[in-house]
Amino acid sequence: MTQIGLPPSEIPMLPARTLLGPGPSNVDPRVLRAMTQGMIGYLDPDFTKIMDEVTDLIRRVYKTAEGRTMALSGTGMSGMEAGLASLLEPGDTVIMCVHGYFCERLVEIGNRVRANVVPLRSDWGGVFPEEMLEQELKKHKNVKLVCAVHAETSTGVLQPLEGLSRLAKDHDAMFMVDAVTSLGGVDVAFDDWGMDYAYSATQKCLGCPPGLSPVSLSERALHTARNRTEKPFTWYLDLAMLADYWGWGEQRVYHHTAPVSMILALREGLRLVLEEGLDNRFKRHAVNAAALRAGVEALGLDLVVPAEHRLNQITVVWAPKGIDEADVRTRLLRGHGIEIGAGLGDFAGKVWRIGLMGESSKQENVIALLSALERILPEVGFEVARGAGVKAAEDALTAA
Amino acid sequence: MTQIGLPPSEIPMLPARTLLGPGPSNVDPRVLRAMTQGMIGYLDPDFTKIMDEVTDLIRRVYKTAEGRTMALSGTGMSGMEAGLASLLEPGDTVIMCVHGYFCERLVEIGNRVRANVVPLRSDWGGVFPEEMLEQELKKHKNVKLVCAVHAETSTGVLQPLEGLSRLAKDHDAMFMVDAVTSLGGVDVAFDDWGMDYAYSATQKCLGCPPGLSPVSLSERALHTARNRTEKPFTWYLDLAMLADYWGWGEQRVYHHTAPVSMILALREGLRLVLEEGLDNRFKRHAVNAAALRAGVEALGLDLVVPAEHRLNQITVVWAPKGIDEADVRTRLLRGHGIEIGAGLGDFAGKVWRIGLMGESSKQENVIALLSALERILPEVGFEVARGAGVKAAEDALTAA
Repeated sequence: MTQIGLPPSEIPMLPARTLLGPGPSNVDPRVLRAMTQGMIGYLDPDFTKIMDEVTDLIRRVYKTAEGRTMALSGTGMSGMEAGLASLLEPGDTVIMCVHGYFCERLVEIGNRVRANVVPLRSDWGGVFPEEMLEQELKKHKNVKLVCAVHAETSTGVLQPLEGLSRLAKDHDAMFMVDAVTSLGGVDVAFDDWGMDYAYSATQKCLGCPPGLSPVSLSERALHTARNRTEKPFTWYLDLAMLADYWGWGEQRVYHHTAPVSMILALREGLRLVLEEGLDNRFKRHAVNAAALRAGVEALGLDLVVPAEHRLNQITVVWAPKGIDEADVRTRLLRGHGIEIGAGLGDFAGKVWRIGLMGESSKQENVIALLSALERILPEVGFEVARGAGVKAAEDALTAA
Repeated sequence: MTQIGLPPSEIPMLPARTLLGPGPSNVDPRVLRAMTQGMIGYLDPDFTKIMDEVTDLIRRVYKTAEGRTMALSGTGMSGMEAGLASLLEPGDTVIMCVHGYFCERLVEIGNRVRANVVPLRSDWGGVFPEEMLEQELKKHKNVKLVCAVHAETSTGVLQPLEGLSRLAKDHDAMFMVDAVTSLGGVDVAFDDWGMDYAYSATQKCLGCPPGLSPVSLSERALHTARNRTEKPFTWYLDLAMLADYWGWGEQRVYHHTAPVSMILALREGLRLVLEEGLDNRFKRHAVNAAALRAGVEALGLDLVVPAEHRLNQITVVWAPKGIDEADVRTRLLRGHGIEIGAGLGDFAGKVWRIGLMGESSKQENVIALLSALERILPEVGFEVARGAGVKAAEDALTAA
């Protein structure tokens, strides 16, 4: 059993980590400091003002004037579940565009809320083909919802959304988007791309600790959530009730005790995002990702995704055949304090997922990782040209 | 729209608050500091070690050797929903002992997960009578679950649990307990009182920010969650999957990104609880609550709950007839920085709920509140003997 009774000076500390996995990413000290302000009641007028500020900041990041925005009191997956549970009733038809691990989770949760889930599966590592959705939509009379993942964290693919959204709208279906890994790292245009519901997470490109899911609902989505035949299975993630709590109803109605510290962190994180400017931030993510790609390719490693569909947030690299990929990750962590991600699902044991998101998307981190890989890979039996990775990345950074 | 682009020095700060409502309570600086350690991956061995430590600390606070403990990634209400959604299948019979606002929420969520909910309602402000449960149990062949709230935050009643638990067990039903407001402030004996599932919250007597729900499952409860006929409606709050993530299965299985900062806060909060010692902590809550009661009665205010069933965490006071109770709360907040709680449900507009929980349970806070009330009440038309409240509280503290 754990030793209890340590004096305050012996609070255990976290080891220092450079977080280059699929999230959480590193967190700016300003965001950490925002959590130390103390505590306030969830219905205190000074706190509800902060909630209003957060809804406004989320709207700016989602580029939405129409969106009813709020931060759900759970991680990104709570945003996924809230959407499916609140927008779908048992038996409603939902089409899921599936080409990765998190798309499969949409299917799983859609089944749990007893919807009529139609999964359309295409290859992992490629974009989801619009024609597949188009053909399927023609087969159904009433499709309530079409779901897609904007940035598949498992494969490193950036999915174009406008075509899928248009098809959904042509068939009078709502369009729901997983923006967990995209929001804050690449353009997300809620209004222009015709989204009805989008959810994200705080610990990826928004530079905050994990724990909240910033979401946006169109007028139609909120109307749908409010005018169901039956109440959703979930109370905790009932978007209609949560919208009333976040001030989108006639009056603010208490729902649950808001996670105050996390909301303070999110406010500060969003302020940082907007201080940097969305376009500057997207460019930073693009430049550092390009340098990383140049570096890993110079080391003789292959990327999973074709050039035109690569995410800047997550670069998915084939682990060389015959080496122990887990050993490489352990050596990075133990010897260099660097975390990178393992493969998920079909890609388990086959790929590395290197994240450069939010605060973690820094030139120094790209160089540190490549330098570490140059030393580790030969140790596990994969020869590389020493210095080639770092040099290629430096050249890319200089050219940018 | 909010002004963006403020320099770091202008991070907005929270106003100072003495939180004497139903939670959140004030948070110890050590807990706030624990959140500033930075960030770490959710599968980092240094983090899973922390998760193990947290499960162990939660076990100590619940006084359980058997309990499978963990912290759910949501507020206290996520613990309520997780239990009902994971332990009940559609059509299962659940008996709810209802004598307050949060008991009614059990009914609401039980209905949402399509259980056969049997609510037994007794008077708000009183304890729930065991014989009512006994009679109802006789009418049913298969009762899967009996639910009770240990400390009803809406009424200020401490519910004895052992009798209810024994009745449930006599009829082979599981026993589920809401320990949101009790855990850490009054004795909670998971094993000795025969609980199968209990859930709590971090922001009441555990002295942490809101955002997690520490729970405990008996072997039977975990077995039930793992061996359902159909998957639960919820994925995010599926206790079987969460138990695997928290290390209660054969191997740890990734479920979602843990809210790292909140877990660090909880670890530090639980360390503080155990450093103080459970018995010392319970005594502190009892002494300060007795002083508060003596003080408010000396001011001529009446308590809702008979002496033998009063909670030490929340004292519920009838607001004097004819005065504007909301105005009193506003004056406390604006003039003194003190938050107390309003009535909920049947008690809305009729009572004040004064919390002395965790870090907020301090003599200074009792005196500050009584002193403020002595000045405010005459201003709103309720005469009091100036000094009487403070004196009565001081006498009680001296006698303790």
